[in-house]
Amino acid sequence: MNEKIDRSAFRNLSYGLYIVTSRDGSRMNGQVVNTVIQVTSSPPRIAVIINKDNFTHELIVKSKVFSASVLKESAPMTFFGPFGFKSGRDFDKLSNVSFKEGVTGCPLITEHALSVLEAEVVNEIDLGTHTVFIGGVVSSEVLEEGNPLTYQYYHQVLKGKSPPRAPTYEAKK
Amino acid sequence: MNEKIDRSAFRNLSYGLYIVTSRDGSRMNGQVVNTVIQVTSSPPRIAVIINKDNFTHELIVKSKVFSASVLKESAPMTFFGPFGFKSGRDFDKLSNVSFKEGVTGCPLITEHALSVLEAEVVNEIDLGTHTVFIGGVVSSEVLEEGNPLTYQYYHQVLKGKSPPRAPTYEAKK
Repeated sequence: MNEKIDRSAFRNLSYGLYIVTSRDGSRMNGQVVNTVIQVTSSPPRIAVIINKDNFTHELIVKSKVFSASVLKESAPMTFFGPFGFKSGRDFDKLSNVSFKEGVTGCPLITEHALSVLEAEVVNEIDLGTHTVFIGGVVSSEVLEEGNPLTYQYYHQVLKGKSPPRAPTYEAKK
Repeated sequence: MNEKIDRSAFRNLSYGLYIVTSRDGSRMNGQVVNTVIQVTSSPPRIAVIINKDNFTHELIVKSKVFSASVLKESAPMTFFGPFGFKSGRDFDKLSNVSFKEGVTGCPLITEHALSVLEAEVVNEIDLGTHTVFIGGVVSSEVLEEGNPLTYQYYHQVLKGKSPPRAPTYEAKK
């Protein structure tokens, strides 16, 4: 353990909260992600960071497409919780959720979401435990106006936790 | 122009606001960045995205080190504005700002900041106009408790703009 590193300092970094989906043939899945960011304006590209152990990671690697739905602040944890703490290998996370099929074939989750974006992977960066997928945006749409759910709100107001596979996970001491 | 892309959808993505610095020998600089994120927990790594035209980009490419200070919500635009809208090639941005030297040699800006992190670059990803620098964190420190300045607060409350070199820049129509 590096004594010069205070993990508390990382908690001041700001994020939103998103459901990222992918699809390979008939197999679809989605998961909660805090790291969806725009990385270039021209052309418009976004990045997502996904744990290699996750089913969604497997689907993106195979299909090279993904979508991101921006959760709204009022999204209940009963809705998005299963996307963060359960694996799509064990059950169909999309069975009771409203979505439409995007131009990439990805399921675009429209429930409790302010906007949806779809992208085609142009670059994959191996970070050991995680992969950064850089995607060229092929469609994006605003579903409704409102405040996005932030990671800070999730932790401070909803008292949510970071699952072990999140980039921001802090092991209990 | 792709008609399927509504740029408004990108505005729902959440970010913080940071000053990223670097140093190459006696040359130092810093700039405002909205994209500082933690990308892995073990080892702790962060990513920053910098426009290739920026002076700070040149310094990071040469020295392979950078720091990030998390601005607090009360940070005045008169303080951080010059870090976003002026080039360090034209004047010394750090001349009137409180900072200390980090273990990497980078200036760690401690004024109006909640925490500071320093990193050594382990990966650079070329995105055309911008570069993603992935850095292994070598030191991090909490300076004070409080709310971080978010990109949403900057736009909605402070009525700030995105400069042309930002990843989130939207050209006027």
